[in-house]
Amino acid sequence: MTTDVLEAWGAEGQAPDMTLATCVTPDDVRRALDVLRNVAIRTPSIESAWLSEHVGARVFLKCENLQRVGAFKFRGAYHAMSRLSEAERKRGVLTYSSGNHAQAVAHAAALLGTRAVILMPENAPRVKLDRTTSFLESAPEGSRVQTYDPVSVSREELGRALASDEGMTIVPPYDHPHVIAGQGTSALELIEDVGDLDRLYVCVGGGGLLSGSAVIAKDLCDAVSVIGAEPALADDGARSFRDRVLRTVSNPATIADGARTPYLGRHTFPLILAHVDGFVTVSEDELKATMQIAFERLRLVIEPSGVLGLAAMLQDAGAGRLSPGAKVGVVVSGGNVDLDAVPSLLG
Amino acid sequence: MTTDVLEAWGAEGQAPDMTLATCVTPDDVRRALDVLRNVAIRTPSIESAWLSEHVGARVFLKCENLQRVGAFKFRGAYHAMSRLSEAERKRGVLTYSSGNHAQAVAHAAALLGTRAVILMPENAPRVKLDRTTSFLESAPEGSRVQTYDPVSVSREELGRALASDEGMTIVPPYDHPHVIAGQGTSALELIEDVGDLDRLYVCVGGGGLLSGSAVIAKDLCDAVSVIGAEPALADDGARSFRDRVLRTVSNPATIADGARTPYLGRHTFPLILAHVDGFVTVSEDELKATMQIAFERLRLVIEPSGVLGLAAMLQDAGAGRLSPGAKVGVVVSGGNVDLDAVPSLLG
Repeated sequence: MTTDVLEAWGAEGQAPDMTLATCVTPDDVRRALDVLRNVAIRTPSIESAWLSEHVGARVFLKCENLQRVGAFKFRGAYHAMSRLSEAERKRGVLTYSSGNHAQAVAHAAALLGTRAVILMPENAPRVKLDRTTSFLESAPEGSRVQTYDPVSVSREELGRALASDEGMTIVPPYDHPHVIAGQGTSALELIEDVGDLDRLYVCVGGGGLLSGSAVIAKDLCDAVSVIGAEPALADDGARSFRDRVLRTVSNPATIADGARTPYLGRHTFPLILAHVDGFVTVSEDELKATMQIAFERLRLVIEPSGVLGLAAMLQDAGAGRLSPGAKVGVVVSGGNVDLDAVPSLLG
Repeated sequence: MTTDVLEAWGAEGQAPDMTLATCVTPDDVRRALDVLRNVAIRTPSIESAWLSEHVGARVFLKCENLQRVGAFKFRGAYHAMSRLSEAERKRGVLTYSSGNHAQAVAHAAALLGTRAVILMPENAPRVKLDRTTSFLESAPEGSRVQTYDPVSVSREELGRALASDEGMTIVPPYDHPHVIAGQGTSALELIEDVGDLDRLYVCVGGGGLLSGSAVIAKDLCDAVSVIGAEPALADDGARSFRDRVLRTVSNPATIADGARTPYLGRHTFPLILAHVDGFVTVSEDELKATMQIAFERLRLVIEPSGVLGLAAMLQDAGAGRLSPGAKVGVVVSGGNVDLDAVPSLLG
């Protein structure tokens, strides 16, 4: 892994490097699953009778909210870290995240015996700080959560400086082939479990889950349409896909915090252009209504970013864009909802 | 099925009829599963890495909150109704329940094309009335929810009068061998999926789920302990088990509404005496804390009655009564939580 991923990437209007559209292959995803078997939870692929009858299709939910750390992020982080050389692992890893990727790296560090430094904004939710710290208690000495003032400090600059000082490898949250291959394993398990799909809905932040899922789904299924699901308030992915050049957003006000990522990655964008069939954007009201459906009808706790794919599927079904009887997969993740936030999120 | 189940049963201190301890056999449970395959959801048996590490055992949750109608009750109701003769089915079924059994009978009626009349107290939660009514919309003509004033009317008397007038068969919520055999299928699936268990925790109201689960678990596992889990405020089952005569409660004030049943059944009590190893009672605070753990750590929505088994397991683990590394099954069900009730239940 390199620390320069972000340096030459991220400008509005930038063209994708389509030579990277083969940087993750279906076999890469299969090999990642070999690594993750017996480590990651093989999460269930659940059919809700109510949901299938409600939309007139057969819908299978791949419940990554039931994954370790409550999110698919564990797959990419663990896989990427397991691919480091012994020397790299000894020197340790660094990442920056206020979300589920921080917990994923911390948990993987403990399991792999790798030192990890996690940069988190000092105003990150207490529960996320606490859980990340708690995972690191079982990781090697020198592991720590380091908080910073997000107003005055650039996390990328701080991260690069620290990683360079301490010889650590940066594990980016999405923009690396090993991370992407790891994220693709949930779609691989889903298709192994339920068979060929007609359509697959996947949430999009930086596009790691979407690109990995699309690579493997297109390989395994005869005629699957892979759909990225984004908040309308953070539709940089949908616009990038439509315009075939990078579109960006800045601090979008969506409740789907996992989808606030400013742009698709240097690797994820070309993979998405090569393998994804379309995007659906959903309103904040649709997100809230879908969380409520998840809670009341599916009995699953899913955070706002995690219901994006489900919200997109429901929108398509409501608009008659879902073929009757179609076999549909939806990746749901993650499941980290603060109890305090329940009334405002669901009420 | 008969309508006289309740007539000769229910007195404090009454002795069990132990000739009924063989009224449900392991093969009855296996045959019930043959009926339920492709009808009931084969709910997932989930291991939470966090939970297993937290208690130092391998814990598998059988997620009946993800079953049709959000509860194991569907299994027993559908199985019992599928065992009726064609003539009985034509005349229809009747039940009384303010809880998940009402929805289960209504849903099974729609699937089987059987007329159903469901007596519900007029003060039942709106969401339960609405859902039961909604299922009955797909059931044959004459199906209806009939509300009654629970203060002035005995639901048993009203039910027997109506059933007799209209020639309907009563489908009791737990105290019938066909219902019990159906409820046992979830433990059968769990053991099929994860193998031999050392211990199995099951929630107790009238004892249908516990007795069915115990019958099949004792048959399949080498040395499993089957534990019933009850609220301390509604510990009639635990006391009946201890004293080997029927103990009763009256309108206990537990939040676990599914466990407010006044006494074990004429059939479930002897089955429990013959096959169950012990009871654990849990406080209301333990129930609330366990619901919170389910929400935050397991990402599952489980109602108070549904977390009884999990709360009992956590109590045993905390008290050092769980062998390190033991393989533990917990049936969790149901998942019908009113959003409005979330703050008071979880807060």
